[in-house]
Amino acid sequence: MSIPSDLDISRSTPLRPLPEVAEQLGLDPGLLEPYGTDVAKIRLEAVDELADRPAGRYVLVSAITPTPLGEGKTTTTVGLGQALSRLGKRSAVAVRQPSMGPTFGIKGGAAGGGYSQVVPMEALNLHLTGDMHAVTAAHNLLSAMVDNHLHKGNALDIDPHRITWRRVLDTNDRELRNIVSGLGGHADGSPRQAGFDITAASEVMAVLALSNSLRDLRERLGRIVIGYGRSGAPVTAEQLRAAGAMAVIMREAIKPNLMQTTENTPVLVHAGPFGNIAHGNSSVVADRIAVRGSEYLVTEAGFGADMGAERFFNIKCRNSGLRPDAAVLVATVRALKAHSGRHRVVAGKPLPPELLAESPADVLAGAANLRKQIDNIRLHGVSPVVAINAFPTDHPSEHAAIRQVAEEEGVRVAVSEHFGEGGKGALELAEAVVEAAEEPNTFQQLYPDSADLRTKIETIATKVYGASGVSYQPAAARALDDYEANGFGELPVCIAKTHLSLSSDPALLGAPSEWVLPVREVRASVGAGFVYPICGDMRTMPGLGSHPAAESIDLDENGEIVGLS
Amino acid sequence: MSIPSDLDISRSTPLRPLPEVAEQLGLDPGLLEPYGTDVAKIRLEAVDELADRPAGRYVLVSAITPTPLGEGKTTTTVGLGQALSRLGKRSAVAVRQPSMGPTFGIKGGAAGGGYSQVVPMEALNLHLTGDMHAVTAAHNLLSAMVDNHLHKGNALDIDPHRITWRRVLDTNDRELRNIVSGLGGHADGSPRQAGFDITAASEVMAVLALSNSLRDLRERLGRIVIGYGRSGAPVTAEQLRAAGAMAVIMREAIKPNLMQTTENTPVLVHAGPFGNIAHGNSSVVADRIAVRGSEYLVTEAGFGADMGAERFFNIKCRNSGLRPDAAVLVATVRALKAHSGRHRVVAGKPLPPELLAESPADVLAGAANLRKQIDNIRLHGVSPVVAINAFPTDHPSEHAAIRQVAEEEGVRVAVSEHFGEGGKGALELAEAVVEAAEEPNTFQQLYPDSADLRTKIETIATKVYGASGVSYQPAAARALDDYEANGFGELPVCIAKTHLSLSSDPALLGAPSEWVLPVREVRASVGAGFVYPICGDMRTMPGLGSHPAAESIDLDENGEIVGLS
Repeated sequence: MSIPSDLDISRSTPLRPLPEVAEQLGLDPGLLEPYGTDVAKIRLEAVDELADRPAGRYVLVSAITPTPLGEGKTTTTVGLGQALSRLGKRSAVAVRQPSMGPTFGIKGGAAGGGYSQVVPMEALNLHLTGDMHAVTAAHNLLSAMVDNHLHKGNALDIDPHRITWRRVLDTNDRELRNIVSGLGGHADGSPRQAGFDITAASEVMAVLALSNSLRDLRERLGRIVIGYGRSGAPVTAEQLRAAGAMAVIMREAIKPNLMQTTENTPVLVHAGPFGNIAHGNSSVVADRIAVRGSEYLVTEAGFGADMGAERFFNIKCRNSGLRPDAAVLVATVRALKAHSGRHRVVAGKPLPPELLAESPADVLAGAANLRKQIDNIRLHGVSPVVAINAFPTDHPSEHAAIRQVAEEEGVRVAVSEHFGEGGKGALELAEAVVEAAEEPNTFQQLYPDSADLRTKIETIATKVYGASGVSYQPAAARALDDYEANGFGELPVCIAKTHLSLSSDPALLGAPSEWVLPVREVRASVGAGFVYPICGDMRTMPGLGSHPAAESIDLDENGEIVGLS
Repeated sequence: MSIPSDLDISRSTPLRPLPEVAEQLGLDPGLLEPYGTDVAKIRLEAVDELADRPAGRYVLVSAITPTPLGEGKTTTTVGLGQALSRLGKRSAVAVRQPSMGPTFGIKGGAAGGGYSQVVPMEALNLHLTGDMHAVTAAHNLLSAMVDNHLHKGNALDIDPHRITWRRVLDTNDRELRNIVSGLGGHADGSPRQAGFDITAASEVMAVLALSNSLRDLRERLGRIVIGYGRSGAPVTAEQLRAAGAMAVIMREAIKPNLMQTTENTPVLVHAGPFGNIAHGNSSVVADRIAVRGSEYLVTEAGFGADMGAERFFNIKCRNSGLRPDAAVLVATVRALKAHSGRHRVVAGKPLPPELLAESPADVLAGAANLRKQIDNIRLHGVSPVVAINAFPTDHPSEHAAIRQVAEEEGVRVAVSEHFGEGGKGALELAEAVVEAAEEPNTFQQLYPDSADLRTKIETIATKVYGASGVSYQPAAARALDDYEANGFGELPVCIAKTHLSLSSDPALLGAPSEWVLPVREVRASVGAGFVYPICGDMRTMPGLGSHPAAESIDLDENGEIVGLS
């Protein structure tokens, strides 16, 4: 079976008018603000309009530890949403907005794929309604105001060596990771070490994703800590009088974006934090609207269950007060084979032929990762469902091997063919999810607010990652002490680590044990509301590869986009 | 008479539905793509749809050399458009999109003011439809691809010391003017001197403004020169395989934005190059649509007639093939008094009380600037009309003094009260403009394509600026020789100089003579299609002041914007 390109499928999909899509969510079409013909923003009045309605089932889609190629979490999310519709459930999907950095870098777009996409995919993968750009603009206004404050006399006595607020761009640009700014003459600022992160890693992005309202967003922006005074006291965006203007810049961005799937299921697209260097979840506001506008809301969290799902449970749900009813774990034959340690998968290169040969033994040899990620969902009192995301190169014996593991763990399992078949291909999965979601729910967070920061880090490291302990670089230990002293100890933690392993070493596959989580640095995202330990060599600004995707993207003679995938 | 704030007037204006506004332009409402309720993009099919209609009169609004406060060119443009409607002419207005840098810096918004505004002003002054952000993203993708090319082996043998392509942000951030990028380790790029300009100064912005179609935009992006190889040959965006992706990023931005004035006159807002460090004109595409969609299209060009108007005639009209029918010169009592040299006007401070005292003598003492700017319009074969932009603090004797100067020069003149009265206050001006526009037209450019670059620079310097000659720094002279050798000699020139004087020294008021234009540096914007000499201390990245406007901008308890002006 040959499947057309994602872009061709997206273009040939008959779109339903967005007012009708809004009505599927029980939303008055007057709450929409159209952006072009195929995307609309939803006014925040929708939260109140739906407040009296019962909440639908809330389903998270997570995954085993992925290969660098990704295992199809977004397509599964979309396919599951479509299949639930086919089962007669009013369903909705909530996903993140892709970053243009990876779109033009190595990854390509992130709209799902095949017959389980968010459409039009080129709108999703490019500017959408400009929310990413608003984050960039608000973030960098604060950056400029920090340096301007130094330049104009530094009334707050900010210590230039302790400024933690960097700048951001939504571009993969390694050249900007470490810079010296403020060179030139007296009129050109003050020389200091600085740098840029990608917009997806901005605290403003996390604030957008975690705010419950425009007012909450404004207050969180004010609480952002940009660095420390010479006295050691934290300096905030509020003290710099920047937070009001930042909120004005973010005033439209806080409204979720309404799109649809290839089968016209409503999709809310909102916020785009990465899942390794940020909390990896779409917005609280979108979920609060969609969970009351549907019987089943399906949302995804970045990378494996140790990454986005852990933050979904312990950060996002802590902020929203929402309780998940089930969690899907996407597993693929290729990723489990990779976890056997017998094959090497490299981004941007074809899969090795040996990996494609029939081998249920390789699948079973990599199953420790699946077992551990199942545990990670259960740790939070939520029922997992294993979704086998089927590829044309899979063999039935390999699917049977995954089913065997799931059954040994006592977990529901289904093969899903949503990529090639759309919602029809995910019906078995949807039925399993409905069963799981209707079970009694014992959702719980992994630690209380009152635990100290080291306890929180160590809880996640040992219980979720399977580490035997945590080590702290001296600077990280000092930072943790400072944060406790400054009253940030009540915050949850968002651990930045590789998404390619349960551990902090991307080379350790399966379910590594007997390793120690090395905390190199700790940042405080006080506005977003978490403390942010960085483990190992994590980069908050990606680079481009030898042949960036951008080189193949162009307009054809009719002005249509080609090469975007 | 007390006039409410611009924001209050904007909010209380009854808006006409945009499909009706489009119909005023003879456009099928199906050509609109709504962005929110009060802004729409116009599909480029509009150019062809209107191609058979006769072109309306094309009126430029320029000004005498302004004070740092600005002399109300945008309000006059809007007021004149409104007044022409009241005279029974189907009129339209075309203006630039403001930059968020100055909006949050010292200047505040740029939507006009009082009862002659583009509304809703907060949409105009903030993201609008994201075109500025698209320019930033496209520009910085190319920047990242330049450095990535160096990092990945430098197959094109680019000389790192001769990279002319910088990065951009739409933020006033002096700290980024001069940086060293690529610090860190081997994986973090290559250390080199670099820097950021404001987005309004990006060559991509100039490409957006000067392109005649999407295809033209794509080709111009490919011609952008990012620097030179070690052999001395220019290296283009096409060679880096970046231009296709840049065009994809700009694919929505090339569509002009439709808004309306406080009296529901159609306004096309498109592109935002500054008038001192860039060519200072809104887009060719917008004008090509609006000039056939109206009987009178009124557009403005940045700063005084030596700046934006000169580029309008010699760069923008050269690109579009359109011919202007009249030009308005906005003059104010306060600016002419300042040109007397007897008063000092400082941005962000109240006017000195002596300047406000009745003094037609001071006005006459500053009139040399008005006379020279009248000449500058006539040099291009276009009829000037002097618009006295009235302020409540003006005295009748001072208006009479301006009238006297205009009459001595044989030029039509009118007092305009559009700020306080809307179109009704600009009727006298509109009548004078209609008379001038109906006169025979002898429009001509100041130099042919075939003149060499030094001749072009010297023609503008001596004929328009009143310089006695031009001096070139050695680097500038070498660059000009290189550009001629590389085949860029056919391009027009866009001279970056202060807008606060006809000369390159902001302290020289009136109409200075016996001075020499110092060309410090020359850049080539080959994609946009001009060579860009920089004279004196021109900054392509502004800074913030001691009290940035951002400090006063916030949301109120209802989520409405306050403090934006």
